[in-house]
Amino acid sequence: MFLKRFYDEQLAHASYLIGCYATGEAMVIDPNRSIDQYIQAASDEAMRIIAVTETHIHADFLSGSRELAQRTESTLYLSDEGDTDWKYAFANEPNVRLIKHGDVIEIGRIKLDVWHTPGHTPEHLAFVITDQADTQEPLGAFTGDFIFVGDVGRPDLLDRVAGYKDTMEKGARTLYQSLQKFTTAMPDHLLLFPAHGAGSACGKALGGVPVSVLGYQKKVNWALKCKTEQEFVDGVLSGQPEPPLYFKEMKRMNKVGPAILGPLKIPIQLLPSALANKDAFVIDIRPASAVRIGFFPGSVGVASCRLCRSFATWTGWHAPYDKDIMIISNTQEDMVAATRSMESIGLDHVIGWVPFDSIPSNQIEKINLISVEDAIGRNALGEVNILDVRGRSEYEEGHIPGVTWIPFGYLESRLADIPTDKPLVIHCAGGNRSPIAYTVLRKQGFRNLFEMSAGYKGYLATGGEVDRTLLEV
Amino acid sequence: MFLKRFYDEQLAHASYLIGCYATGEAMVIDPNRSIDQYIQAASDEAMRIIAVTETHIHADFLSGSRELAQRTESTLYLSDEGDTDWKYAFANEPNVRLIKHGDVIEIGRIKLDVWHTPGHTPEHLAFVITDQADTQEPLGAFTGDFIFVGDVGRPDLLDRVAGYKDTMEKGARTLYQSLQKFTTAMPDHLLLFPAHGAGSACGKALGGVPVSVLGYQKKVNWALKCKTEQEFVDGVLSGQPEPPLYFKEMKRMNKVGPAILGPLKIPIQLLPSALANKDAFVIDIRPASAVRIGFFPGSVGVASCRLCRSFATWTGWHAPYDKDIMIISNTQEDMVAATRSMESIGLDHVIGWVPFDSIPSNQIEKINLISVEDAIGRNALGEVNILDVRGRSEYEEGHIPGVTWIPFGYLESRLADIPTDKPLVIHCAGGNRSPIAYTVLRKQGFRNLFEMSAGYKGYLATGGEVDRTLLEV
Amino acid sequence: MFLKRFYDEQLAHASYLIGCYATGEAMVIDPNRSIDQYIQAASDEAMRIIAVTETHIHADFLSGSRELAQRTESTLYLSDEGDTDWKYAFANEPNVRLIKHGDVIEIGRIKLDVWHTPGHTPEHLAFVITDQADTQEPLGAFTGDFIFVGDVGRPDLLDRVAGYKDTMEKGARTLYQSLQKFTTAMPDHLLLFPAHGAGSACGKALGGVPVSVLGYQKKVNWALKCKTEQEFVDGVLSGQPEPPLYFKEMKRMNKVGPAILGPLKIPIQLLPSALANKDAFVIDIRPASAVRIGFFPGSVGVASCRLCRSFATWTGWHAPYDKDIMIISNTQEDMVAATRSMESIGLDHVIGWVPFDSIPSNQIEKINLISVEDAIGRNALGEVNILDVRGRSEYEEGHIPGVTWIPFGYLESRLADIPTDKPLVIHCAGGNRSPIAYTVLRKQGFRNLFEMSAGYKGYLATGGEVDRTLLEV
Amino acid sequence: MFLKRFYDEQLAHASYLIGCYATGEAMVIDPNRSIDQYIQAASDEAMRIIAVTETHIHADFLSGSRELAQRTESTLYLSDEGDTDWKYAFANEPNVRLIKHGDVIEIGRIKLDVWHTPGHTPEHLAFVITDQADTQEPLGAFTGDFIFVGDVGRPDLLDRVAGYKDTMEKGARTLYQSLQKFTTAMPDHLLLFPAHGAGSACGKALGGVPVSVLGYQKKVNWALKCKTEQEFVDGVLSGQPEPPLYFKEMKRMNKVGPAILGPLKIPIQLLPSALANKDAFVIDIRPASAVRIGFFPGSVGVASCRLCRSFATWTGWHAPYDKDIMIISNTQEDMVAATRSMESIGLDHVIGWVPFDSIPSNQIEKINLISVEDAIGRNALGEVNILDVRGRSEYEEGHIPGVTWIPFGYLESRLADIPTDKPLVIHCAGGNRSPIAYTVLRKQGFRNLFEMSAGYKGYLATGGEVDRTLLEV
Repeated sequence: MFLKRFYDEQLAHASYLIGCYATGEAMVIDPNRSIDQYIQAASDEAMRIIAVTETHIHADFLSGSRELAQRTESTLYLSDEGDTDWKYAFANEPNVRLIKHGDVIEIGRIKLDVWHTPGHTPEHLAFVITDQADTQEPLGAFTGDFIFVGDVGRPDLLDRVAGYKDTMEKGARTLYQSLQKFTTAMPDHLLLFPAHGAGSACGKALGGVPVSVLGYQKKVNWALKCKTEQEFVDGVLSGQPEPPLYFKEMKRMNKVGPAILGPLKIPIQLLPSALANKDAFVIDIRPASAVRIGFFPGSVGVASCRLCRSFATWTGWHAPYDKDIMIISNTQEDMVAATRSMESIGLDHVIGWVPFDSIPSNQIEKINLISVEDAIGRNALGEVNILDVRGRSEYEEGHIPGVTWIPFGYLESRLADIPTDKPLVIHCAGGNRSPIAYTVLRKQGFRNLFEMSAGYKGYLATGGEVDRTLLEV
Repeated sequence: MFLKRFYDEQLAHASYLIGCYATGEAMVIDPNRSIDQYIQAASDEAMRIIAVTETHIHADFLSGSRELAQRTESTLYLSDEGDTDWKYAFANEPNVRLIKHGDVIEIGRIKLDVWHTPGHTPEHLAFVITDQADTQEPLGAFTGDFIFVGDVGRPDLLDRVAGYKDTMEKGARTLYQSLQKFTTAMPDHLLLFPAHGAGSACGKALGGVPVSVLGYQKKVNWALKCKTEQEFVDGVLSGQPEPPLYFKEMKRMNKVGPAILGPLKIPIQLLPSALANKDAFVIDIRPASAVRIGFFPGSVGVASCRLCRSFATWTGWHAPYDKDIMIISNTQEDMVAATRSMESIGLDHVIGWVPFDSIPSNQIEKINLISVEDAIGRNALGEVNILDVRGRSEYEEGHIPGVTWIPFGYLESRLADIPTDKPLVIHCAGGNRSPIAYTVLRKQGFRNLFEMSAGYKGYLATGGEVDRTLLEV
Repeated sequence: MFLKRFYDEQLAHASYLIGCYATGEAMVIDPNRSIDQYIQAASDEAMRIIAVTETHIHADFLSGSRELAQRTESTLYLSDEGDTDWKYAFANEPNVRLIKHGDVIEIGRIKLDVWHTPGHTPEHLAFVITDQADTQEPLGAFTGDFIFVGDVGRPDLLDRVAGYKDTMEKGARTLYQSLQKFTTAMPDHLLLFPAHGAGSACGKALGGVPVSVLGYQKKVNWALKCKTEQEFVDGVLSGQPEPPLYFKEMKRMNKVGPAILGPLKIPIQLLPSALANKDAFVIDIRPASAVRIGFFPGSVGVASCRLCRSFATWTGWHAPYDKDIMIISNTQEDMVAATRSMESIGLDHVIGWVPFDSIPSNQIEKINLISVEDAIGRNALGEVNILDVRGRSEYEEGHIPGVTWIPFGYLESRLADIPTDKPLVIHCAGGNRSPIAYTVLRKQGFRNLFEMSAGYKGYLATGGEVDRTLLEV
Repeated sequence: MFLKRFYDEQLAHASYLIGCYATGEAMVIDPNRSIDQYIQAASDEAMRIIAVTETHIHADFLSGSRELAQRTESTLYLSDEGDTDWKYAFANEPNVRLIKHGDVIEIGRIKLDVWHTPGHTPEHLAFVITDQADTQEPLGAFTGDFIFVGDVGRPDLLDRVAGYKDTMEKGARTLYQSLQKFTTAMPDHLLLFPAHGAGSACGKALGGVPVSVLGYQKKVNWALKCKTEQEFVDGVLSGQPEPPLYFKEMKRMNKVGPAILGPLKIPIQLLPSALANKDAFVIDIRPASAVRIGFFPGSVGVASCRLCRSFATWTGWHAPYDKDIMIISNTQEDMVAATRSMESIGLDHVIGWVPFDSIPSNQIEKINLISVEDAIGRNALGEVNILDVRGRSEYEEGHIPGVTWIPFGYLESRLADIPTDKPLVIHCAGGNRSPIAYTVLRKQGFRNLFEMSAGYKGYLATGGEVDRTLLEV
């Protein structure tokens, strides 16, 4: 048996190719839209993809299952569990086979036992693999967003992004039952191959080791160590990160059927005059340091942070799914990479790009910078307001006393909460998100904005007072 | 004044960007469809393209004028000379301005005087440049297919590819008059910037120096040295290479209006089963050496020759304009390059590619190779027929006695002329075109084929007899 | 805790980066010479490499430990186990710390317990990892060539490549004891991270899943299922693949101290006349299909096989460590990749490359090809000899009756065993190794060679008789 | 005859490959150190380089003649004109042939007549090409730094960079005589192929058209239109740009014999601690916008300007030839490109690079920015000094009243002239050179620095007063 793991750093998403050496048949689990990578890897092993599946209707990226199965003329196995709200709308396509708990898929000598593991979502499946060439003992399981390394899939997303109400607690209890059944039935030496790694918003505490073992998780994973259902429910519903707004759209698109991308496109270069089109969303992908020196007002600067890993998620917070998108970039190479990233979350409507240097300088504005000392001093004198755009858990761990707090992803929907009586100083942790917030507000017509680019980290370095008051729930 | 020359090796095609340093305005002359290169170069010089033009309706590549002008929101200057058969069908588009002999275009301080120079085609223009920042004396001229380095544009294409009759001699005489007028009016120090270089089928003897001077051409260019019109007419109508069949289609498309390419596409990978589609044209772009070892019967192996320069032209001879195209390749990189090449001559219908290694080995056939000695020996014994697929001039310079001669581009249309009573030995000059001919005939159902891959060059090395009989006209 | 696995397909070699999120400190285990990859990955995680180690003195690739530790100014932990023959000669370098069974290394909150696990080699160590941020239970172990997925490290290499005598059985027994101790002491849920994957010559049956669990291996790994020491000893000493000849050199160099590569170099292009230098080793890296059509006699064509994975190993069989190396290639890109591959096994003396197309055609020879039918027919008539160059296990699984068998890696040392009374037909399994054998013999002055490129696979397809006689031990 | 022009944008340097189709022999004129490009181009044309030459001992880049001739085993033709000070020190190498006025070089059917054309330098040659396949009339000339498009080579470099005294006027008169002789002897239709294009510091007014014609230059080139020798002398000695300091070193190295680069090297990544080495020169190649936000004090930020064209020249102003060099970069790709650029001017001692992001933040400093309004206001109040680091001609065209003027390339040698009594505001034209100046002064220990990044352009936009006083000569 052959197994290869694919990991997308931006999505913190893992997918898997497995194949049988004896028959040359292969299967892909939880693919994203970069489907060429799976086809290439199978071909490198002289294997042929005959099956594609996914553990559940993903919320954080657009699934590549449908396109990969069509391209490779494979069978697409989709969950038939969950109630009518959770049925795939494209299940009637000829190559789809619906599967339920207890079903078995065979890929050469490899056997996959289908387990229904609801909780994160109602239709969620896990696949237990047995390499029958070796033994009838299971080798491992693809657990999707059921069990992660160090955590479990959060059950609160339906309420928080899919428009459901009061499903969180029920989901948490269902998840507890799923965990009980699965962990009891499986041997301790079972390998766990989850769909996400550290940094994913599908859980709160995912670890940095790519794989784990059931017996070890029982010892270290907080969720598997809970003594009572209630302890688990309380734990799993607290401390979860804000789910990005685009998750809702992902859920919908993955259920309806992700659009077939087909040939990848390289967006064309546009004249700066194209930026005048008010109906398009303009995203500036240059580094924060460049955006500070000059940006096009009206664009949103999802400046690539130092590690470039948050690009897809941060863009998902702000970019609309019903508008054309234009990119401002320094280079064609970055522009193409950004286009591919946006496609990974279904933002397919990139109509072109504008090199920043081609924009006439009289249409450029720069970010007003303010030092920590200046900002704090003026705040003390009542001359400015301060806006903290970090996430909830960061805010609760400590913030500057008296600031307004709105996570940067919610700005557009909470404009009314932003004080406008004085100049506004924006900060995040260390200067990656504050330029985004600045350009978002500038686009909405705000003026008198300042960025405290040193961020909360810079504030701490000055030895300023820290407020650790928790937010009301 | 700034001037940059762009040269496409495959098309042997030169285009030009000129710009005025004083105003930052720029113009492009005779662009091909790789329009990004012009936009990038202008941007590198901090210039902005405001005008695009072309010397005539090209026959050998698809023009990029229309798309470049649209993309850059430039004025597109098109010839209004020639009779009704030679009017651009998209001349009514809002950014088009029709021009005639005597018109003047100004790009900052640069002046272009429009000259009507018919002969190669009836609507042909040349543009005389004056850098008014320096002097009122002309600096040079963009001569298109009017005057080349060492040659002039052939006047026989209309008859030979565009379906006209008996226009050759008239065209030749018109061209002579155009030459007389132009060369008399212009100073000897005039720089000549033609649209083609060595290897183009738009003339017969283009030189390898990219640029020349009128005074020097008067001394060395056979066409400018003719003492009488008749000498010129006889000269220009003899010895021209076979014009590729696709030239006809190019003329039509360039007149009607080349399709707008928009975002470049990267064709998707297909399963080998896609090759069963008989309605698509399958082109194999791997090197000849690889095709010999194994090819898919039904594909045409336009194997990249050693220098890779003939790919577009050789493909143009064989690929249809009304069918989907599939590519067989070793690598995605080559496949994308081939796709771009085909787009340069309007073959836009690439629907996907198949990696050669993914084709099941039982669907693969190899080319039967035969040595020169064996082929000649068996030919002497009457056991085989020999087919020479080189061009007319190569054939006339010397060929193996008794062979059948059909240029490789005409094979599909002359199947009936190919002897089938004995095994057929195919050869070209040195093994670049014979695999194409082999696969073309194999696709048409021929069997009992052999490739003498050492070619005529190999034959000469054996000291064999040479027949230099000319073909009847 | 962060963990990242690096896998080199050509060496079938796995190395690991682990890091502590709390302190940002990181460690690398069993690095190869591509040390930039570890530095980059640590930097991507905002971590800093402070320690480097290796499980043992590797035989199949040149270790990057020394250079990585120097470059990153890290502590280099080296085994102090084994007798005086197995001491690192560079252990006195200032950043080296010698370690023994029972020692503990701490990287932030991560603890590595050092286990002495002799058998594959006398000084072999395993590192048991505990993520003290989570628990005091061990999480997994870096097992090097001690326990693989589905196999264990072979104990016969010292005899077979390092010049030792009669150590095989003793090594096997030692290994058995090491396994007993380790597997008894460790929990079933222990993750196993070995140094090799499928295809490595350091074992005979490595699996295609990158990671495994002790509890599962106890059920499926033949070596852990043996009931008696003797059963294990018999098993581990039978059926091992031929170890490449270069293994001996690797052992020596890794013990003495691998040369510091420093800045990577891009070999220069040489004139074809350079090939006349008889003191240099000339390697042709073009595909087998190209080599067949034309090669430079005197070069050895380690034509990249379809999957390109055997390049380093196959080159190691033939290239000398005491000569300059010249590369014949089609492209600079391939040439650079081949140079890097050769560096991975210590072949650092590449002095330049020659593009194949620049070699005058009169210095080129082609491989004589023969069909299976022709070869078998002539063999039956006693007109030719057949040479099978596959490995021992392939030969024993079935071969053409009456052939001479010499694995392609031993040809140079067994020239006297090759029959020269008749034309010689060379074959391997499917045409990847036969061009190497052909060019090796051609270089040694053999003539009258033929390649049966369809190989044993092609022979089987004809339904020919199969001889399954085993070789004498 | 084949001719190809190579143009290096950073050096504004043109070199040429010419070849004879009949014999396949080729020659390179004035190569730089990127010698692979010439070998590749010759190979693409199936030609073989048999000769290399240069017009003179270049001052602005390191010549590739010696290495190219050695690599291709060609004859290297070197000037034997000029007095003993101007003899090549490596003329005794076996493949060198010395040439003088009147000598003839033949490359197949191509003839090069050697003309001695002193003035720019005493040993300067021009090569008049005749394509004898066509005619005995000359086709063109490689004029080196003798005649440019729109200008002539400056005769003042010997005094200004090579340590000579009072040679300027003599050189100018010699140049005048050379021009008289050459332009009188040559036909008006002669093509001129010079060694430099727009932007070169080897002249003052080079045009943007790559090629010109003698007859046309006689009409528009100021130098060829002078009526008297004195008019020419006065003209050619006025208004020349400051020659970069590294020119002196180039002259010396090109005369002594440029080092053979051999295999290109990719510098290794170093730990930030390496930056503590005070004996090395640290160059930061990140964009100005990034340097402003954070730089390592002690590094010199030759930030790539918008067009990236000045990198080599600007680095040449500051980098020492006798020290190791370390690069600070964002990416390996940029670092390698910068290394190649530095090699083009002989800065071969790059020992490694440090990714900017790996430098601990407490070792980073940011550039203090100041707005034009603030700077001018404080200047009026006597609170700051202003330093203009633009070139002489820019300064004379207009400057802010009362500023100190030191071209950025002379800062290190004129530290004593920089006022230190008040904070210092540095500006250039538009923000490309001011970060260099800022980091140079910071490295020298200056404090209280501010950058007015909007530059003189920004000053003009405020409508401020302009001082047009010329500098004393």
